[in-house]
Amino acid sequence: MNQTDAFTLSCPIPIGEYPNVLLAHGGGGRLTHQLIEKMFLPAFGDPALSQRHDGAVVPLTGSRMAFTTDSYVVRPLFFPGGDIGSLAVNGTVNDLAMCGARPVYLSAGFILEEGLPMESLWRVVRSMRSAADRAGVRIVTGDTKVVDRGKGDGIFINTAGVGLIEHDQTIAPQAVRAGDRILLSGDIGRHGIAIMASREGLSFENPIESDSAPLADFVAVILAAGIEVHCLRDLTRGGLAGGLNEIAEAAGVGMTIDEALIPVREEVRGACEIMGLDPLYVANEGRCVAVVPEEDAGRALGLMRAHPLGAGACEIGEVRATRDHAPAPLVMKTRIGVNRIVDILSGEQLPRIC
Amino acid sequence: MNQTDAFTLSCPIPIGEYPNVLLAHGGGGRLTHQLIEKMFLPAFGDPALSQRHDGAVVPLTGSRMAFTTDSYVVRPLFFPGGDIGSLAVNGTVNDLAMCGARPVYLSAGFILEEGLPMESLWRVVRSMRSAADRAGVRIVTGDTKVVDRGKGDGIFINTAGVGLIEHDQTIAPQAVRAGDRILLSGDIGRHGIAIMASREGLSFENPIESDSAPLADFVAVILAAGIEVHCLRDLTRGGLAGGLNEIAEAAGVGMTIDEALIPVREEVRGACEIMGLDPLYVANEGRCVAVVPEEDAGRALGLMRAHPLGAGACEIGEVRATRDHAPAPLVMKTRIGVNRIVDILSGEQLPRIC
Repeated sequence: MNQTDAFTLSCPIPIGEYPNVLLAHGGGGRLTHQLIEKMFLPAFGDPALSQRHDGAVVPLTGSRMAFTTDSYVVRPLFFPGGDIGSLAVNGTVNDLAMCGARPVYLSAGFILEEGLPMESLWRVVRSMRSAADRAGVRIVTGDTKVVDRGKGDGIFINTAGVGLIEHDQTIAPQAVRAGDRILLSGDIGRHGIAIMASREGLSFENPIESDSAPLADFVAVILAAGIEVHCLRDLTRGGLAGGLNEIAEAAGVGMTIDEALIPVREEVRGACEIMGLDPLYVANEGRCVAVVPEEDAGRALGLMRAHPLGAGACEIGEVRATRDHAPAPLVMKTRIGVNRIVDILSGEQLPRIC
Repeated sequence: MNQTDAFTLSCPIPIGEYPNVLLAHGGGGRLTHQLIEKMFLPAFGDPALSQRHDGAVVPLTGSRMAFTTDSYVVRPLFFPGGDIGSLAVNGTVNDLAMCGARPVYLSAGFILEEGLPMESLWRVVRSMRSAADRAGVRIVTGDTKVVDRGKGDGIFINTAGVGLIEHDQTIAPQAVRAGDRILLSGDIGRHGIAIMASREGLSFENPIESDSAPLADFVAVILAAGIEVHCLRDLTRGGLAGGLNEIAEAAGVGMTIDEALIPVREEVRGACEIMGLDPLYVANEGRCVAVVPEEDAGRALGLMRAHPLGAGACEIGEVRATRDHAPAPLVMKTRIGVNRIVDILSGEQLPRIC
């Protein structure tokens, strides 16, 4: 079955027979086989999966790889601009991209709750395939478990990812230096607000969609141009504030950012005000920061803006040596001109956004 | 903190302060950081983890790798002979070993239920570290999510694994040939029965412990001796019957096994009779089958028996060409001398055993 077939056909498990996921679909017997053979293998359509082995055996090149994992427990499963399936692919692709790696292989581990409508699973699987195709990664191995009703929540997905590093740069917090510039790839806060609005049944005049997107190509373009990139970070849980604090702490530096330079769409700002949220902390799934040396900042920004996923990119601040800096790692000059410490929160403002 | 410290110290999260997991421990803020910095990083103690990046950047050698994933949802979390932590390491290590790969890197993705005792998490984390040390793998990247009370079940763990293939053999169902011998690494059924007994509060005169163990070294010894190995399969969900059926189906061959040659401990056989289970279908977590050419079978068996994890290894049957075979892929000569078709079950006899 090729990609088009997978997208146009209806759920390949006979709904009349199995309208819902049963514990036996995770039991390793005939129903598990049916799920794998009829749904996962055709939808993901990868020769490595078709080996029907305990793992995928795949070719390897280069001398460094990136390896990452993320579990996705987002609620609801389907939201404006995406669903748990595309999120699970994009999120892990982005973690690899943030390591400066070219995402190559993904795994897909499903924990399904007994009673899940089979049709929902199929929608999610199709969405994963579509997202994987867009990001240029192969889903090469997988696993399915089913837990009793009331011991899960529909679908949890773990995706682990392997990426190849095809350059000699060290892209990590430890490479960040005082004087580096902080570039943000565009407006922030859309994913978290889309989830929240969807969960609370809020509707806005201009519907807010998640920014969920794969950032691998975006990063590849910057690296291919020979830009020296010190650190990359996608801005998921904890948002921009969380991401920058993490880098600053791990790097042992301070950072200063300027509130007036951080793009937030009007509708996101409005929704944040209504819900009492600070957009700095709201999760994104298609946004990142890049920390680059001052001399490369202008060229990097030009490349980012020329890419569809970075049209709104801008420089929002710079890295300072700790000794020249305020007591906290991250300080923001607010719109009214005072400096505010931007701490990390104790938890997430919105649980289960990814 | 070195390994000994990790094992002798009590839970590193102040129990007085946080006796239970909170949603905020998965929120990406301060409590998530505390969990990572105080518990995961010291316990797993890997330099790649300490990069505090979105993924691990690790060295790479060779031209083929194996990549696998498994989620673990076993109930109860702690059982005779193991726990969900050691199982999550051994299970994924074994999947890599079954691909003929040397397990090198693991990821650890936790989905925790709000309210989980912090002490339970700590026991599981220590157990994972201990199992990883035993198997010689590094836990290099991880992720933690927390779901609301009643939307999970204590701890679910996903481990993905990367292994390097350091030989030229193709170890896969497709390499299986008529005439090959089927070797079993020892007695079957202990894991499933240990879980079941623990879950149902049954006690036996001779307590049955899970056989959970890492099979990587066991496989490495066989490969290092130059044995031609056509296929390997660990016998988890679906047991021996499930594993052999899967291989036979994927290989397009038939298999004949002899019941009298399949080792089952007396206490396991007894427990199976009491609970109405067939040991052929009961899950194992430290057992595998190896399908090897007839001429290598004797030497392979000798190597298996010389290894601590294969002391009870034996040849249990052979591969037949489909045309010479009964209508079903797997046929067993029973103790009373008649041939019985050993089909796969619709589901697992015992849900959530791994």
